[in-house]
Amino acid sequence: MSTQLTGIAASAGIAISKAFRLETPDLTVEKKTIDTIDEEIQALDAALQTSKDELEKIKEKTRQDLGDEHAEIFSAHLLVLSDPELVDPIRQMIKDEKVNASFALNEIANQFVAMFEAMDNDYMKERAADIRDVSKRVLSHLLGKPIVSLAEINEEVVIIADDLTPSDTAQLNKKYVKGFATDIGGRTSHSAIMARSMEIPAVVGSKEVTDQADAGMNVIVDGLEGNVIINPSDDELAEYRQKLADYEEQKKEWAKLVNEPSKSKDGEHVELVANIGTPNDLEGVINNGAEGVGLYRTEFLYMGRDELPTEDEQFEAYKKVVETMDGKPVVIRTLDIGGDKELPYLDLPKEMNPFLGFRAIRLCLEKDDMFRTQLRALLRASTFGNLKIMFPMIATLDEFREAKALLEEEKSKLLSNGVEVSDNIEVGIMVEIPSTAVMAPQFAKEVDFFSIGTNDLIQYTFAADRMNEQVSYLYQPYNPAILRLVKMVIDASHAEGKWTGMCGEMAGDELAIPLLLGLGLDEFSMSATSVLPARSQISQMTKAEAQSIAEQALTLNTAEEVKQLVEKTFL
Amino acid sequence: MSTQLTGIAASAGIAISKAFRLETPDLTVEKKTIDTIDEEIQALDAALQTSKDELEKIKEKTRQDLGDEHAEIFSAHLLVLSDPELVDPIRQMIKDEKVNASFALNEIANQFVAMFEAMDNDYMKERAADIRDVSKRVLSHLLGKPIVSLAEINEEVVIIADDLTPSDTAQLNKKYVKGFATDIGGRTSHSAIMARSMEIPAVVGSKEVTDQADAGMNVIVDGLEGNVIINPSDDELAEYRQKLADYEEQKKEWAKLVNEPSKSKDGEHVELVANIGTPNDLEGVINNGAEGVGLYRTEFLYMGRDELPTEDEQFEAYKKVVETMDGKPVVIRTLDIGGDKELPYLDLPKEMNPFLGFRAIRLCLEKDDMFRTQLRALLRASTFGNLKIMFPMIATLDEFREAKALLEEEKSKLLSNGVEVSDNIEVGIMVEIPSTAVMAPQFAKEVDFFSIGTNDLIQYTFAADRMNEQVSYLYQPYNPAILRLVKMVIDASHAEGKWTGMCGEMAGDELAIPLLLGLGLDEFSMSATSVLPARSQISQMTKAEAQSIAEQALTLNTAEEVKQLVEKTFL
Repeated sequence: MSTQLTGIAASAGIAISKAFRLETPDLTVEKKTIDTIDEEIQALDAALQTSKDELEKIKEKTRQDLGDEHAEIFSAHLLVLSDPELVDPIRQMIKDEKVNASFALNEIANQFVAMFEAMDNDYMKERAADIRDVSKRVLSHLLGKPIVSLAEINEEVVIIADDLTPSDTAQLNKKYVKGFATDIGGRTSHSAIMARSMEIPAVVGSKEVTDQADAGMNVIVDGLEGNVIINPSDDELAEYRQKLADYEEQKKEWAKLVNEPSKSKDGEHVELVANIGTPNDLEGVINNGAEGVGLYRTEFLYMGRDELPTEDEQFEAYKKVVETMDGKPVVIRTLDIGGDKELPYLDLPKEMNPFLGFRAIRLCLEKDDMFRTQLRALLRASTFGNLKIMFPMIATLDEFREAKALLEEEKSKLLSNGVEVSDNIEVGIMVEIPSTAVMAPQFAKEVDFFSIGTNDLIQYTFAADRMNEQVSYLYQPYNPAILRLVKMVIDASHAEGKWTGMCGEMAGDELAIPLLLGLGLDEFSMSATSVLPARSQISQMTKAEAQSIAEQALTLNTAEEVKQLVEKTFL
Repeated sequence: MSTQLTGIAASAGIAISKAFRLETPDLTVEKKTIDTIDEEIQALDAALQTSKDELEKIKEKTRQDLGDEHAEIFSAHLLVLSDPELVDPIRQMIKDEKVNASFALNEIANQFVAMFEAMDNDYMKERAADIRDVSKRVLSHLLGKPIVSLAEINEEVVIIADDLTPSDTAQLNKKYVKGFATDIGGRTSHSAIMARSMEIPAVVGSKEVTDQADAGMNVIVDGLEGNVIINPSDDELAEYRQKLADYEEQKKEWAKLVNEPSKSKDGEHVELVANIGTPNDLEGVINNGAEGVGLYRTEFLYMGRDELPTEDEQFEAYKKVVETMDGKPVVIRTLDIGGDKELPYLDLPKEMNPFLGFRAIRLCLEKDDMFRTQLRALLRASTFGNLKIMFPMIATLDEFREAKALLEEEKSKLLSNGVEVSDNIEVGIMVEIPSTAVMAPQFAKEVDFFSIGTNDLIQYTFAADRMNEQVSYLYQPYNPAILRLVKMVIDASHAEGKWTGMCGEMAGDELAIPLLLGLGLDEFSMSATSVLPARSQISQMTKAEAQSIAEQALTLNTAEEVKQLVEKTFL
């Protein structure tokens, strides 16, 4: 008899194959009293070095296969290995307590993991997961029990594991690994995000898949619905083979739209563009037929290093992106750091509420040398394509005017030094703070465009940290409060002949797309892999239908009512 | 020649008197190596105990003079003295390093102070100040150099100090202490808040007042403008004596309004009511002629203790308040805990962004036993006066409906057990989250009233922690974004025949009052001492003038433009 488990659909697609059990070697440590302190410390240092070498390789492979954004996680892991706050106490414990290195490592790492996990929010839990991943690697070398390398799999399988670490996921070979299912994890864990980029079907958080699926059993991973079927019956196999064929068919249909414009059934054109983190992401943007870049997050240029990127480094990156996009629009967002994204070398103060703190444009307006460097790099790159500049976290008109004035100053200086700068760069803002949505009519007179950042806008509008599980029920994209704010922004922009885009997760969400089309959104920016499904979805509805739904939704009371309305009408 | 210093006007009024220098005894500690560990630990314990006894006395005196809310700070100090995280490391250091108790205390306390101060936000800085205050007290006993007691002053003086601790301030005798001026501190420090309650004129943060004012010099403290004049000339003395006389005159004029209704020049009535923390605050409410209580914060019933208050304890407190107010409206807010207000015995998780976290109604809906107990106490008290119930931090209609349903359930149960409950209790919500302001038209169909909580509404609308100095420039009550949200709420309530109040700091602010009157606010709730000045201000303007200003303000771009408009028109 087959067993069906339900988890979280983490990466779309269907996989049918034999189970490969990812077994972690037994890394139990014993406490030993030692006299040879120096030898233990040498053993620790050797294990740290081997782990660093391995991680450098994995990072490089990830960078090549998946791009800088995904490789970033391994920079974080490498930092953990070099962090004196972690490593020094291990050495100290070996010396003070005369214990073996593996015991000391395990004790100290567990302390840090427990501390971060106790913090009960997803961000800190990811930090705990990083330390667990890294310390396991070091421990495996200390104990001489190397971790199985998933890179060596050479037959078609579905991987079954308690959890996949990012370093596990980075080593998956798409040719053989058809999908994976894990006991724990969420949709926003690193592994889930990587699986989506690699287009490997995945179900996470299915709680007991490792109890139910033994090596060699047939397993179906349904990453569309979030189901895992172990030992499927012949009927189930037939059903899912059909589902897989349908999905492949659908992907082929989507692929036909690569060079098509994005149009509703009745011919209304919208722009479907992609979010990117680094120039390496452009291949996916082009392969998926995006009509431009709606959000280039420049943070990655600043991360995983010891000092600020130079003007020339930035110029080269921006130039590459606008050149590659060959005249298609590229919206580049200026540095959005702070909050949960730290740059250790800036030495920013610890804050009680970092999401309500000194970040993004607030920081850039104060550290204006750093900001001016970025603005100059952007201005210099502007002649190589269709470059637009966007400021993040704008809360007041004063902030926008100040940022714009710095841009104009740098432009004048460049021009007077004979440097070419485009004379029609659009300058816009992210709308991710409620005050800015409410003041959109005033902003619309001064900005060239808006891009609504729904991830933050939703968390501020409901005053609920979206990474805090206890209030995650308040992350409500479909709540009429959000739709009303979105409408205010769109209407204000149109009244002044400007345009509004959206670059939060909502823009690529099939339940939100009809509402946004109906509200008159001009540009939808999403992960590249969502562009073709969205184009297909939009081609199947008329603008008038969408408008009628949106108007009804605005009058409803709750998010659930809106969701039901859209589902009833379109799905 | 006189010297004029400018600081922060922390408490209104003018004081002219001789300087009394509050000198802290020299509490420098020496590091000594000791053999008598047990004796040092006994000395530490004795100093801790003496400090506890003193603080218990100060707390009790404060409770009698100023009420529970002010006494609360000394509960916090007593907790510091009993906190094993602070005290154990001191004992440990004495043992491990064989050092004297005063050295160990000083070292450990400084570490904690440095840690909290490094956090760079006002809340943590207050915690640092608490530890500094308490450890100074213990140190003074260890060193046998008792701190001067301000309670012993027996001639008229103005106190000059680097800083006043809350325990200093609590001991001030209003009969002799005419005012104070300090080098450091801010408007929201505990001492400033206590000075306002005690109606002692104060200027804080004047940076160098201790350098300039010697004991016995003549000093003027102008708590209206934030000036300190040392060694005033005869002209200056005459000028400030006149200013003092004018202010006394003005206070007399205000006092005449105690039993008057609050009406604009053209007869439009609004309700001016007071915020309270405990039943002890009612004396001030009545003496200042407030027309009711617009916000009774029930948190203080839950604080400074080891377990939840019982239903009967709560019932007695609520009953006392509604009975004392004798038929005048009393809006009681259900428990608003979490965020920066912790209850140690609830053992809530640490959060990355507590202001966006699991607090107030979010917590109450989950811990519904605790919430139901409070609701029953409120329902039972409802027959003793004009009691209204208000839920804090409501973000969605679902939350309101859930809270209201719990209230209805408890009401039915009480009625079926033969307990009397009023049958016309108004049930309203705080509007302090942007989503709720935007959805006000929907909420207005279901609630009986709104009360706008501007302190939180402003920080969420601008996504800026109001306690974080680096983004405090974004705390903008006059920004048109806030005025628009306020208007949405008021208009929505009136469309359904409901009323809107305001219970944030903005409601008592002389620059905001004309705008709020113009927007149609029905009820202004403020600290009791602001009621008469507000009544006087409102009596001097017509509703039509206020409306015209409010309409203009809504069309402006920035907070500064609004501020200038109001100043130009009314001040």
